[in-house]
Amino acid sequence: MNLKQLSQLLGLSQTTVSRALNGYPEVNAETRQRVLDAVRETGYRPNRAAQRLATGRAGSIGLVMPTADGIESDVHFGEFLAGLGDEAAKHDFHFVINPSHPDEEVATCRRLVASGNVDALFLAYMREKDPRIAMMKTLKTPFVVHGRSIGVPTDYPFLDIDNTGAFYDAARLLAQLGHRHFALLNGPDYLAFSIRRKKGTVRALAEQGLVLREDCVQHSQMTDEHGFRAMERFLQLDTPPTAVLCSSTVLALGAVRAINQAGLKLGVDISLIAHDDVLPMLKPENFMVPLTTTRSSLRAAGQRIARRLIAGILQIETLPQQELWKTDLIVRASTGPAPAGK
Amino acid sequence: MNLKQLSQLLGLSQTTVSRALNGYPEVNAETRQRVLDAVRETGYRPNRAAQRLATGRAGSIGLVMPTADGIESDVHFGEFLAGLGDEAAKHDFHFVINPSHPDEEVATCRRLVASGNVDALFLAYMREKDPRIAMMKTLKTPFVVHGRSIGVPTDYPFLDIDNTGAFYDAARLLAQLGHRHFALLNGPDYLAFSIRRKKGTVRALAEQGLVLREDCVQHSQMTDEHGFRAMERFLQLDTPPTAVLCSSTVLALGAVRAINQAGLKLGVDISLIAHDDVLPMLKPENFMVPLTTTRSSLRAAGQRIARRLIAGILQIETLPQQELWKTDLIVRASTGPAPAGK
Repeated sequence: MNLKQLSQLLGLSQTTVSRALNGYPEVNAETRQRVLDAVRETGYRPNRAAQRLATGRAGSIGLVMPTADGIESDVHFGEFLAGLGDEAAKHDFHFVINPSHPDEEVATCRRLVASGNVDALFLAYMREKDPRIAMMKTLKTPFVVHGRSIGVPTDYPFLDIDNTGAFYDAARLLAQLGHRHFALLNGPDYLAFSIRRKKGTVRALAEQGLVLREDCVQHSQMTDEHGFRAMERFLQLDTPPTAVLCSSTVLALGAVRAINQAGLKLGVDISLIAHDDVLPMLKPENFMVPLTTTRSSLRAAGQRIARRLIAGILQIETLPQQELWKTDLIVRASTGPAPAGK
Repeated sequence: MNLKQLSQLLGLSQTTVSRALNGYPEVNAETRQRVLDAVRETGYRPNRAAQRLATGRAGSIGLVMPTADGIESDVHFGEFLAGLGDEAAKHDFHFVINPSHPDEEVATCRRLVASGNVDALFLAYMREKDPRIAMMKTLKTPFVVHGRSIGVPTDYPFLDIDNTGAFYDAARLLAQLGHRHFALLNGPDYLAFSIRRKKGTVRALAEQGLVLREDCVQHSQMTDEHGFRAMERFLQLDTPPTAVLCSSTVLALGAVRAINQAGLKLGVDISLIAHDDVLPMLKPENFMVPLTTTRSSLRAAGQRIARRLIAGILQIETLPQQELWKTDLIVRASTGPAPAGK
């Protein structure tokens, strides 16, 4: 059974059958159902070549998912994927996800493009001088970067949040509240967003003549446990911090527990600001002491990137190629004036 | 540029070039690099038909990801995906993920199979009398179900944990500790795992002449906020529960906060057991009062299912078609005897 035979069986054109199989909106629901029923009954499996003949595209977006023994799954990845999914579902697009050891991401990206299975590529977990950008520029496949690299020309399509500005704003507020001793619970040190958040923090402190001590900076994956252990360590220093910045509410969860365990009162003895990706499973406003946050929705970013990629593939609208989203600094109860004498 | 021309350019057979592009281990690293470099330089994009010619397969596993406005991203989905990825990466398999409204999962599964983009399908989020199982049985594409449906013959390939047994064990322990008033914080009521966990709880209580009151059962998505709100509500009942079962550590996070806020001491005034999927971002042993749990690693389940699917496709080993994993009941500080007089 090939496409021609299936079409003859149904009394439809090959184009209509292909479009039905690819979920095109031009095909009405009844016809699509007939085609799908016939596919099931006949066991017909269209090949990609036939699909492409009708559509000229694969109908998919490619992603590389970093994975390896010892690499913890990233709750932020799932949230972003949900956003991509929201938009992709509207246009009957799917994803091709290639798991890859982080050290082999360039080769995996290249292979994903070479496979012909994707119309566009989505790149994330940007590093300094990230080699994937130069590689993608040599190919014809459209791509959007989530985040931005550092140390390479910023002439590629991206969507990023203003990480430097977010942590500058947060650190400045804490300095204005009289804090002089800061700590930073950050993401992995090789990722560009971590580097920018540290830079924003250092810059705001420098303006007040303050420094961020290296023994008050922790880089790690963003889990509850890392937040707890780092905060425990900071509190044992001779001059412990009174102001803490966290790159994720998940890190903050552990940090707050260490603060409670030490008998300190959040927002009184010690202030904390976390970056909030608007993860539905953990809301900063619901913490026992609601958290002051810099906020930007990861799901909204996923939706926007999917929309930009799909709009480009289908040529249905022209959207900006570079977007830098500002974050909101939302003050809640976890921040207050520096305790007297500290 | 087609496969033939590319092969001639490289002085390799078409089969070798195709295998290099599909990541076959038979092709040595140097040859693969030459092929990939040539692909990049020439802009060659192989079509699926050519790949299949060489390999006879798509090299991919299909998944449907439920998504819609108002549906929260599921942290458990990301963790499972990480497990699938671990195993897939070893065999150069990728995933094709089709986002779908939950009401359209049958049609989406069918379309994913019909697309010819996947060699096997992975099914999850099983419901009672789940229609996807009967549909998959009419097709030739191999599949493995994560979980099991209810009310249909169990004659399909699955990997499930013993949800009934896990919650039976947990409820029995609490009853043995003298608890008489129970609450259950469960997942969505239409999912089979939730139904089984409730059944296990009810069965253990019945053996002690106890009942699970309907106003002490909450079904919801498994977020911190839902755990908090439900626990708040339970504690306002005329006879509040002294024993609480939670279907996720994420639910437990909110429940514990409500317990603390009410001034109750966990493990003394009220006991709690949570199911632990071994999510790296939130470990039950790190809670202020470490949680007693029923434990089974979601990532390990993902690895196993990927291995079973890939072993079947590549015919490299014969693995069992049905697996029911027992959970461990691990006692920590969140459980204790029922408070006197309650």
